Amino acid sequence: MTFPKIGITIGDPGGIGPEIILKALSRSDSITQSANYILYGNYIALQEYDIPQNLEIVKIQNHEEASNDNLSFLEIETDLKVITPGHPSKEAGNASFSYFDKAVKHAQEKLIQSIVTAPISKHSWNLAGIPWSGHTDFLWHLYPEAIMSFWSNELKVILYTHHLPLKEAIKRIQKDRLLAFFYNLDLSLAKTPLKSCHLLVSGLNPHAGEKGTLGTEEETEIIPAIEQAQKKGLSISGPYPPDVVFRKAFNEPGKIVIALYHDQGCIPFKLESFHTGVNVTLGLPFPRTSPDHGTAFDISGKGMADFRSMEESIKLAHKLSMIF
Amino acid sequence: MTFPKIGITIGDPGGIGPEIILKALSRSDSITQSANYILYGNYIALQEYDIPQNLEIVKIQNHEEASNDNLSFLEIETDLKVITPGHPSKEAGNASFSYFDKAVKHAQEKLIQSIVTAPISKHSWNLAGIPWSGHTDFLWHLYPEAIMSFWSNELKVILYTHHLPLKEAIKRIQKDRLLAFFYNLDLSLAKTPLKSCHLLVSGLNPHAGEKGTLGTEEETEIIPAIEQAQKKGLSISGPYPPDVVFRKAFNEPGKIVIALYHDQGCIPFKLESFHTGVNVTLGLPFPRTSPDHGTAFDISGKGMADFRSMEESIKLAHKLSMIF
Repeated sequence: MTFPKIGITIGDPGGIGPEIILKALSRSDSITQSANYILYGNYIALQEYDIPQNLEIVKIQNHEEASNDNLSFLEIETDLKVITPGHPSKEAGNASFSYFDKAVKHAQEKLIQSIVTAPISKHSWNLAGIPWSGHTDFLWHLYPEAIMSFWSNELKVILYTHHLPLKEAIKRIQKDRLLAFFYNLDLSLAKTPLKSCHLLVSGLNPHAGEKGTLGTEEETEIIPAIEQAQKKGLSISGPYPPDVVFRKAFNEPGKIVIALYHDQGCIPFKLESFHTGVNVTLGLPFPRTSPDHGTAFDISGKGMADFRSMEESIKLAHKLSMIF
Repeated sequence: MTFPKIGITIGDPGGIGPEIILKALSRSDSITQSANYILYGNYIALQEYDIPQNLEIVKIQNHEEASNDNLSFLEIETDLKVITPGHPSKEAGNASFSYFDKAVKHAQEKLIQSIVTAPISKHSWNLAGIPWSGHTDFLWHLYPEAIMSFWSNELKVILYTHHLPLKEAIKRIQKDRLLAFFYNLDLSLAKTPLKSCHLLVSGLNPHAGEKGTLGTEEETEIIPAIEQAQKKGLSISGPYPPDVVFRKAFNEPGKIVIALYHDQGCIPFKLESFHTGVNVTLGLPFPRTSPDHGTAFDISGKGMADFRSMEESIKLAHKLSMIF
């Protein structure tokens, strides 16, 4: 039987990425053996840590060598010579971008079936002159239809817009754009375990505009888009008052919230699911997951990092690889 | 010893107000005896319910008769003849407005020291031609400096703006207005148990604008206002990324979040503290509290209503009455 190959990029070598990957993968009770895990990075970053006894790491040259009996390591050629835990650097920026760039190319070539990314440092990428603000930003450049979503056991949230000034995000609330987004999302979810979920659309204004008295976008843009999507057979409803919709979907595995702007979705998600939340990029030709936190430079190299979000990211990537 | 007189308006007679008031006040283990509670309403609304055995209700004509040995009931003259649990009506709208209007007048005359309001129905008020959208809206009309806030054991949130379309709320992010708000808030909090708390100001844009790349309001308006307030000695800091600031203040009793618009504050608060949250209007000459939920027409008259938010509202009104 062929197991899926899951590429895991180690992120910024000076961040908590290597630590949480090793911790998560050593959890044999939760990480499945029916996958071939391939780490993308520079091996010196792992040498900062005690390798858990139950992990055997084997350096491979090509993907044929990957096995589910051990953990494969693919050494990426970079200028990285020294690891500086807790500090951004140009070399770390170049290196962490190279890991990701290579993993994306391999996913496009179907050498791996999914990608899990450990956190990169935006600061390191800046120092290295990498023009993207992060993994997702780079993916949008390649795939403009990419969709940012957050999954936990308690809550699933899709972002309609993300890294835009709030004023600009409001301008994107247009019937046709919303409708195109709903269709694209529906197609993307069809390849995931959430394919039968009901979509709850949040309103934009307080109390979802209260019939136009507290804002008009619900009446002129959002409701028409939802009605049109319903006619096309999508399981979608709303708009619901923003301060009600997340409670409606909370602990309801069959429901997903569509948040209309970054903080509408990220405020409740990070409050409820910070340690176990997974960031999932939809709308790509391959699944990509990542923990919902950063490099945590303040604690990196100290063995204190919480690996649960990474563990969930790996488990979800495996699940998505099986049905994608 | 003189105990504070706390006015409690029963809200929409067809809603859950009367039920949750009776339930909350019968909790002798948590509701203090060192207060004189005066209900404002029509007694027929209470007759829909079994009066708890430990509650003695005495109809009074004036405030001198109020006692801490029993529960005082002040009958307000209205046209209400019939109670229709679960349904809005013109009569219920007129009646619930009259209870509140009378309580506010009595608070202004210092006949009572604080007001607790049970939920009204906006629909009933509409039918009755009452032009305000709710208690707080009416209070703003009387006191333009009134401030809406939400308190629970886990989280305290202040709203900078509230019932405005999001587009309009963004336009209010102006340095001078923010600064005036911070000063007014500081004065208002001085009369509450939160007077020594630190104020955490949320940003407006994703990641608090990321130094201007994701929105400029932080740089041009919010930071200058915070710095000016700090110079005047206020314990205030920020702006913090909106999806981080609520976690910073969560379960930190010494910290309060200033949310810049309605849903920024209401989404996290209602998700975390729906059953025990209290809505507190600050900046008035008297404290006013209310449960953070509506009339719940769907369950009213059925004895199923959760009284905890009302219980907390009464306890907090008592506490505020003692130090205001």
